[in-house]
Amino acid sequence: MSDVIDRPPARAGLKVIGTRPVRPDGADKVTGRAAFGADFALPGMLVGKVKRSPHAHARILSIDTRRARALAGVKAIVTAADFPDLASEEYEAGEGAANLRDLSQNCMARGKALYDGHAVAAVAATSAAVADAALSLITVDYEVLPHVIDVEAAMAPGAPLLHAHLFTQGLEETPQAPSNIAARNELTRGDLAEGFAAADVVLEGRYVTAAVHQGYIEPHACVAAFASDGQSQVWSSSQGQFMVRTFCAKLLGLNASDIRVTPSEIGGGFGGKTTVYLEPLALALSRQAGAPVKMVMTRDEVFRATGPTSGAVVTVKLGATSDGRITAAEVELKYQAGAFPGSPVVPGSMTALACYDVPNFRITGWDVVTNSPKVAAYRAPGAPISAFAVESAMDELALKLGIDPIALREKNAVRDGVKAAYGPTFRNIGYVETLEAIRDHPHYQAPLGRNQGRGFAVGFWFNIGGESSAAVHVGEDGSATVVTGNPDVGGSRASMAMMAAEVLGLPVEKVRPIVADTASIGFSMLTGGSRTTFATGMAVTQAAQKIVADLKRRAASIWDVPVENVDWLDGAAVCLDPAKAGLPPLTLAGLAARSAKTGGPITAEVSLTAQGAGPGFAAHLCDVEVDPETGHVTILRYTAAQDVGRAIHPAYVEGQIQGGVAQGIGWALNEEYVFDAEGRMENAGFLDYRMPVASDLPMIEAILIEVANPRHPFGAKGVGEAPIVPPLAAVANAVRRAIDVRMTELPLSPPKVRAAIDAR
Amino acid sequence: MSDVIDRPPARAGLKVIGTRPVRPDGADKVTGRAAFGADFALPGMLVGKVKRSPHAHARILSIDTRRARALAGVKAIVTAADFPDLASEEYEAGEGAANLRDLSQNCMARGKALYDGHAVAAVAATSAAVADAALSLITVDYEVLPHVIDVEAAMAPGAPLLHAHLFTQGLEETPQAPSNIAARNELTRGDLAEGFAAADVVLEGRYVTAAVHQGYIEPHACVAAFASDGQSQVWSSSQGQFMVRTFCAKLLGLNASDIRVTPSEIGGGFGGKTTVYLEPLALALSRQAGAPVKMVMTRDEVFRATGPTSGAVVTVKLGATSDGRITAAEVELKYQAGAFPGSPVVPGSMTALACYDVPNFRITGWDVVTNSPKVAAYRAPGAPISAFAVESAMDELALKLGIDPIALREKNAVRDGVKAAYGPTFRNIGYVETLEAIRDHPHYQAPLGRNQGRGFAVGFWFNIGGESSAAVHVGEDGSATVVTGNPDVGGSRASMAMMAAEVLGLPVEKVRPIVADTASIGFSMLTGGSRTTFATGMAVTQAAQKIVADLKRRAASIWDVPVENVDWLDGAAVCLDPAKAGLPPLTLAGLAARSAKTGGPITAEVSLTAQGAGPGFAAHLCDVEVDPETGHVTILRYTAAQDVGRAIHPAYVEGQIQGGVAQGIGWALNEEYVFDAEGRMENAGFLDYRMPVASDLPMIEAILIEVANPRHPFGAKGVGEAPIVPPLAAVANAVRRAIDVRMTELPLSPPKVRAAIDAR
Repeated sequence: MSDVIDRPPARAGLKVIGTRPVRPDGADKVTGRAAFGADFALPGMLVGKVKRSPHAHARILSIDTRRARALAGVKAIVTAADFPDLASEEYEAGEGAANLRDLSQNCMARGKALYDGHAVAAVAATSAAVADAALSLITVDYEVLPHVIDVEAAMAPGAPLLHAHLFTQGLEETPQAPSNIAARNELTRGDLAEGFAAADVVLEGRYVTAAVHQGYIEPHACVAAFASDGQSQVWSSSQGQFMVRTFCAKLLGLNASDIRVTPSEIGGGFGGKTTVYLEPLALALSRQAGAPVKMVMTRDEVFRATGPTSGAVVTVKLGATSDGRITAAEVELKYQAGAFPGSPVVPGSMTALACYDVPNFRITGWDVVTNSPKVAAYRAPGAPISAFAVESAMDELALKLGIDPIALREKNAVRDGVKAAYGPTFRNIGYVETLEAIRDHPHYQAPLGRNQGRGFAVGFWFNIGGESSAAVHVGEDGSATVVTGNPDVGGSRASMAMMAAEVLGLPVEKVRPIVADTASIGFSMLTGGSRTTFATGMAVTQAAQKIVADLKRRAASIWDVPVENVDWLDGAAVCLDPAKAGLPPLTLAGLAARSAKTGGPITAEVSLTAQGAGPGFAAHLCDVEVDPETGHVTILRYTAAQDVGRAIHPAYVEGQIQGGVAQGIGWALNEEYVFDAEGRMENAGFLDYRMPVASDLPMIEAILIEVANPRHPFGAKGVGEAPIVPPLAAVANAVRRAIDVRMTELPLSPPKVRAAIDAR
Repeated sequence: MSDVIDRPPARAGLKVIGTRPVRPDGADKVTGRAAFGADFALPGMLVGKVKRSPHAHARILSIDTRRARALAGVKAIVTAADFPDLASEEYEAGEGAANLRDLSQNCMARGKALYDGHAVAAVAATSAAVADAALSLITVDYEVLPHVIDVEAAMAPGAPLLHAHLFTQGLEETPQAPSNIAARNELTRGDLAEGFAAADVVLEGRYVTAAVHQGYIEPHACVAAFASDGQSQVWSSSQGQFMVRTFCAKLLGLNASDIRVTPSEIGGGFGGKTTVYLEPLALALSRQAGAPVKMVMTRDEVFRATGPTSGAVVTVKLGATSDGRITAAEVELKYQAGAFPGSPVVPGSMTALACYDVPNFRITGWDVVTNSPKVAAYRAPGAPISAFAVESAMDELALKLGIDPIALREKNAVRDGVKAAYGPTFRNIGYVETLEAIRDHPHYQAPLGRNQGRGFAVGFWFNIGGESSAAVHVGEDGSATVVTGNPDVGGSRASMAMMAAEVLGLPVEKVRPIVADTASIGFSMLTGGSRTTFATGMAVTQAAQKIVADLKRRAASIWDVPVENVDWLDGAAVCLDPAKAGLPPLTLAGLAARSAKTGGPITAEVSLTAQGAGPGFAAHLCDVEVDPETGHVTILRYTAAQDVGRAIHPAYVEGQIQGGVAQGIGWALNEEYVFDAEGRMENAGFLDYRMPVASDLPMIEAILIEVANPRHPFGAKGVGEAPIVPPLAAVANAVRRAIDVRMTELPLSPPKVRAAIDAR
């Protein structure tokens, strides 16, 4: 790549990028007009419901559906026997990657139920009441097995074994016996012993996080209409209609193109909607019933059967010189995968030291299956967990050395030209700028009161590119449609319209962004990995550029001049030919009206694999007050600086940062999966699973550091995931300084904080 | 154009084109799974209904909606006051062309109701019962005016005047007074007086046809969801989602791109769904109510308020030599337009003599407004009417001269190089071949019994090209989607998939054809004019060719050979490089699996204005038996030969021919609008408006004459309209020969036939 460096970014000449128009889907969403997953309906539609295991681990001896089938109004019942018994096969599709056998068995238990809530059968009936009655008439004969949920207990010899076929990957020696440890991964550099030997101080810590759920407002929901010899259709809420199409095709043995998936609006996903749960069941039920089937999860089902992220145990050992230079780091990460392999321990490992230029390190990760719901991606998967550990340890190091925590980070900061701990060499990053922005912010010097503390932490996320498609269609009146294949989870309709408007020279109100179904646009990787504004935005920009080239060609033909003599300015072709001086510009609307006679409709489509996403760095500062009576932690003030490339729509970049911080605060303070002795989730509802609400949070101030990404036409990079990485540690570090006790186990809920104060 | 002549067409090498696979939408349609216009639903949807004028002509003095608005459950009421009062403006969009003021006033009467059934108000309510009650609570104060429906009565001086602003277009002198005659058109050649002077015989006749309806099974239906600041949506049954978008945008004053129109399956259109009736009303109601609105017409409304085609009076005067050479022809056509200008008298005039090489002629057409529903396009608009007159006259000429009716046509037939009566010079036509095919068919020599007769007639239709868009998306598993913007009215999904499959080298089952919404594909002119297989098929073929070029480029890159050394054979890239002999082919599926690393998703989109549609000719032979007791005419046998270019899917070409003949037979024998003395339609239902059913018809034999169209990549031309042109005369000529009386007024219903026999 060329090392174009553009700091500060050249905004000159941009008319739309960087402004803050109202989002095109805003009114729909605030007025209730937007159609979410549960809002679709088809004539003759049935209601589908899932029967779920009440046991955390049990052999399924038999399933008797006869009484349920005999019930009037029951139109279909499916179990694992109704799906192909797939072989183990890794399917790579970005954050939608999955082992197809595991995915199939997570959608419908085969032989064993592996967690409380695991689907064992599904019914379709003429009403919800009949479907519920049918569920109760299905008899499942279980042999209950011992279960294990704690990650370290699951790793221990003699632990109840989830999968007889699971042998640990990534060990030096071939394992002789199956294990709950699915895989070991390692990253190393330099000589660890030498590094610690060079250290003046060595610190060790053990950090524990709880499993937490993405907590999207909208439960999973879909409508499926199977057509054995036609076009099966699925409407669903997901982060990727093509992901849904692929997985349904694989799990049901169909051609991808024989399934048409239309994305609904999505009421939050945060990574949790990068896989399928209901869609294959609804299709299988629809196939059997010969009618469309609608399925909507309850909140209880969302908690018990869809992916939280891992609970984890992370140990960190840091060695540093007395002036704060890190000489060695050793990090070990043990992540719950839930019932099937695939925790985010690999990205957790890769990001653990990504902010630091450390000469000697070893990072070891363990992916461990447990009798809990299979984890799904959750915003910067794995990174908040490892950052909680490493940033808590860094804070301890700063305290021990008596060094300002920001100065400590700056001293060890990665910069352009430094080789990242996970491999590549950084270019065009804005990390140090985020540190400086917080250091120089009034917040950093503001006085604190009694029982108050200020915590600082940093975070990193890769961001990704990948496959995206976009089309731009100019209407006959000169308005335009921008079509992409990525669900809009955070304002991407606005940014897509803005990028197209910028190129076309149209007011953004004349550009209508559309999220199309899988039949109507080229393949697009799902919305995840903070890729959409970058990768799909690149496709949109290129498609708009093709439109402009086409419009210039048409204008040149109308004027009978070489196309080199036509420029495109402010939404109109301008004739530069001196021999034709004085010709009025040909506007886009004017050219659109003449399109039939100048080559036909004005359209362009681009499909690409975007590269050069550019990583994101975040530096967060958090003030808390701890109530010594109750242990309750109040967030007083929060400031987040982030390297955002260039903000296409600054308000939605700020919104991403605020949202990530809010979720990180919930993770830090209150959220956790609580299981009873039988491994059943005890708090599967928003009353007992405590997420932060608006009244729990102050206004979160976002500082946008714009170091343009040279690989994107407008300098954009992903911004959605980095902001959830620092808050766990930023909050914990603030509590540490407020109560003078290092708490290492999340969540920092009132009883635990009160206990820590008492033990002080 | 190059005069590529390809007769018979070179079929060698084609593997998919010309075969008869099951249509992709077939199972959906026969099992009831296909979703038609009335099958959509949205949460919170209201029911919209229309209040219609009970008077054929009346001034609207006032509309009082207060009592209706006060009714619980009524959410919106609109009248003309809720729509912009548009100025007269002709909007050109193929068969969807319209004067926007007239279109607006046809959707909702402004000032005057111009026909029985004319919409005067519309309501949206929470249920159909409430909506009906609301309609009855709306009080309209009318001043009933004299009305006129008969076309010649409407032309007469002193006739009740529909429009004070209407002055006849196309006259030599500027008219001084308004008139019901909207326009006069004329086509002439040679010297008429000289031509008649050279004739040995001169015949004159006057022919009358009744207004008939397209008779599609599915009534007009739509759901509209207005979004004042977002994306308004319309789901409707139409022949063109872009036509619906354009007209709704124009009638409501919106950006075209702010309306997204999704086409439903269409249960027949035949030209009658090339305009809007309900969609603008539903959008206006939805705007006022703030909720989606569904509107579905009753059959009564379809008859009373949507377009039939013209009732007409046509006079024909022919001069010929005794050996059958036509020396002169004079044709005058008077067509009802219904309440607003725009009958199909222009195409009726242009096609009147299109089959004949006549040295001297004058064709005069009159477009006349009447107090009846505004006519809409109906399959080969205008041509069956003029063909009924001209072909009846030709039959009389054959009888008078004692010449075989086919020989008479052949003697005067247009051929390649002949200048058509309507202007251009014919190239690559297969007209004479259709005459020869009927002449040589066993049917032509088969014996006839008592009260039986055999009629022959020919017909012509232009076929059109125009703007089409298509995209081809290759899925990650190597299956493909073909996306177009044209509703499938006659099997076009099958032909689109077949053309793409032929180019890609895929089995047709791996190609899924999709009809996309207006946001998801480039502009496409509506499905009409027999344009889709030709024009959209051209776009599909070109898009598939772009895919193949892309795949060859990717294969060349994988093999590291020049792209010139890669061929595409049977769905796989083949390496022709002698230095790399033995490399296995790279299949489409294999290349698709590697697409992310070879440039991204595999997609191509093409938008074009197709030219060179190639006209269609049809020659029909019909045997009838007339029951002398009842006057009932039974169709005994029917054979239709047609110049079809090349049949992509022969079964659906045959289906088009059979369908056109069936409709023509209905027009000939039974169908007619019957009005009472007050101008109210008396037979607005299928019990009283008698369309032919299966038991009325014999198997219709279709003979496909394949003279490849050199302007289409696979030689295709339009086939859907030509077959409705000859049947009116073919039936009438058969009756003439069965009963020895020339009947000149359609329909040839039993009472009229019985009366003709009695008067013999």
